Amino acid sequence: MKIGLLGMGTIGSGVFEIAQKLDGIEVKKVLEKRFQADYITDKIEDITTDPEIELVVETMGGLHPAYEFASEVLKNGKHFVTANKLLVSAYGEELTALAHEKGVAFLYGAACGGGIAYLANLKIAREIDRVTALGGILNGTTNYILDSMQSRDMDYAQALSEAQALGYAERDPSSDVDGLDTQRKLILASSVGFDAYIKPEDIPTRGISAVKMADVTYARAHNLVIRLCARAERNAEGAISAYVEPTLVAANAPEAAILVNVNYAWYSGESYGLMSYIGQGAGKLPTAANVLRDVQSVSAGARYMTSENCKRVQPDNSAACHPYYIRIADASAIPAEWIARSEVLDGETCIETVPVSVQEMHNLMANHKDAFFAGIQRG
Amino acid sequence: MKIGLLGMGTIGSGVFEIAQKLDGIEVKKVLEKRFQADYITDKIEDITTDPEIELVVETMGGLHPAYEFASEVLKNGKHFVTANKLLVSAYGEELTALAHEKGVAFLYGAACGGGIAYLANLKIAREIDRVTALGGILNGTTNYILDSMQSRDMDYAQALSEAQALGYAERDPSSDVDGLDTQRKLILASSVGFDAYIKPEDIPTRGISAVKMADVTYARAHNLVIRLCARAERNAEGAISAYVEPTLVAANAPEAAILVNVNYAWYSGESYGLMSYIGQGAGKLPTAANVLRDVQSVSAGARYMTSENCKRVQPDNSAACHPYYIRIADASAIPAEWIARSEVLDGETCIETVPVSVQEMHNLMANHKDAFFAGIQRG
Repeated sequence: MKIGLLGMGTIGSGVFEIAQKLDGIEVKKVLEKRFQADYITDKIEDITTDPEIELVVETMGGLHPAYEFASEVLKNGKHFVTANKLLVSAYGEELTALAHEKGVAFLYGAACGGGIAYLANLKIAREIDRVTALGGILNGTTNYILDSMQSRDMDYAQALSEAQALGYAERDPSSDVDGLDTQRKLILASSVGFDAYIKPEDIPTRGISAVKMADVTYARAHNLVIRLCARAERNAEGAISAYVEPTLVAANAPEAAILVNVNYAWYSGESYGLMSYIGQGAGKLPTAANVLRDVQSVSAGARYMTSENCKRVQPDNSAACHPYYIRIADASAIPAEWIARSEVLDGETCIETVPVSVQEMHNLMANHKDAFFAGIQRG
Repeated sequence: MKIGLLGMGTIGSGVFEIAQKLDGIEVKKVLEKRFQADYITDKIEDITTDPEIELVVETMGGLHPAYEFASEVLKNGKHFVTANKLLVSAYGEELTALAHEKGVAFLYGAACGGGIAYLANLKIAREIDRVTALGGILNGTTNYILDSMQSRDMDYAQALSEAQALGYAERDPSSDVDGLDTQRKLILASSVGFDAYIKPEDIPTRGISAVKMADVTYARAHNLVIRLCARAERNAEGAISAYVEPTLVAANAPEAAILVNVNYAWYSGESYGLMSYIGQGAGKLPTAANVLRDVQSVSAGARYMTSENCKRVQPDNSAACHPYYIRIADASAIPAEWIARSEVLDGETCIETVPVSVQEMHNLMANHKDAFFAGIQRG
């Protein structure tokens, strides 16, 4: 199969490199403005109108012009494979509908999990089983920062700065540290696992930018480890909860064994039980390998990540309840009936709550951006 | 697709139950002597000669008559899917060749990993990447015993007896506790990941039946956890090492987070890096779900777990070296130059060695069945 490639950055060059070694796949043309070669063009039409190109891989990232190019590719009756979570979390529903209309494939297995074949397996689990819950540690940058603080006693600023120096974090780290990258991946996983499209603004999302060493001290003292986790759950009636928040997990939980920038993705099904995947959530070759897995799947007949019944769902987080840890300057902001216990560590008031709904907690804490809070999951 | 099912035991009844819910799959006939129903027969010919049956699932277990039935199914031009690791580790090469000759499928995804889609993903990794190493905690019974000893201070006999009461261990537990079940799964994983058939007798294999609380005490004192691990590795020249042995892993390693009867399977590829899978390694519904995953794959065009280049390989464990822990009554049996340090715990001499080759260690310890030894993997 001859393919076109949009973008020759980190992931794109990985796709190009691995594709050279695979039988049956030829990268015929690459859209790229920064280099020149006989297979490189700077005009999208050279790719979308090439009758020999059956499939186009997009590894440019960003919303525009990735969205316009994706539409053009699909309208021209070519299969489309992308690793772009921003694109899919914003336009996945529309692009999937367009792909269905044109009878071509639209796969995005590498857009959540990077090198981990999480979505590909989750799709099969949805087809064979009933998936009841899913989630994980879906962002390597924040895990690197949290692990550095906990394994190497670095403070947040040091750990972030090291992550930036290593290329794990962007100069503007907000999409990672504020949990938005994790949120987008949760949207993708929910689409695949639950056949449900969820809007970003409907997912209560809190990142790690307020974390301090006092929180690390608290976690250690209670044999817990801080991780940034996504979680979505579907009850028997089909109602879905979905949220992203720092989580204190038991020190012997699998999440606690996820170090540096590694990712951890899981789902739970009525037949399968709990299935977890650990691996490289980003990076040139792991992600590129998963992009090519999608390309091979299209060759073998795969078409969509979601079924034709996939529909928009408004999550309900009012019934998702668990205890929380809160460190806040003004403890009087927390309703007294929520407080199970509190202690002072490094001069900070650390509160542990009774089970509180995700909705109520995120609503309250939206007014306290400097406070750090985390769900508690003792296992 | 109409399928036949050989055996209605635990896994077979799970396959029957899940298949009822799936579109496009109908269990037309079941071979079973213990029950009667209109879809049940006690004659294999009723299934192998039924022109409507395109695929046969075998969940009887055991070598005979599973082997004879598998051959009959394939000779009659029907696809064959099995969860029987004993069958595949002994006859996989021959049955795959027969399936190729007849142009039908032979898949065994659930025979290693149970509910974990390990082999299915490993196959794709082999096709896209170069797999360099693989292994894991592939036996839930022994993990249950080791975890009970370490998490709940039970001695070996108590833990085994509890595992038997829970149905995790057989009355004769030798195939689990002596590492043979793990060895068979390593053979399957090597066939898929390396395109290499390895004979059981060529894999140095040591189980856990000699483990005592003194070993647990030693591991705890050194911040290590005891697990039974399989490992196979392929060097740049293509030589393969493969062995099964107890392993002391770092307390913060993912292996240490594998509790009760859960399984952990991993592979490492040049592009993918390290990818790990955690889940239910056995059990009715998880394993049955993975059997049906194979059935769906056959519908979608999948045919074999190995490529046509899969060939018999003699592993070489002389260059696979690492430090070992040894507890042995007669410490003079250990060459003095191997000993890095030793200490007396609970009246037992516990030795830690310099790196020693797997081949040499297993050769020596074959004469000391009462001693316990374990590779040390500090991470």
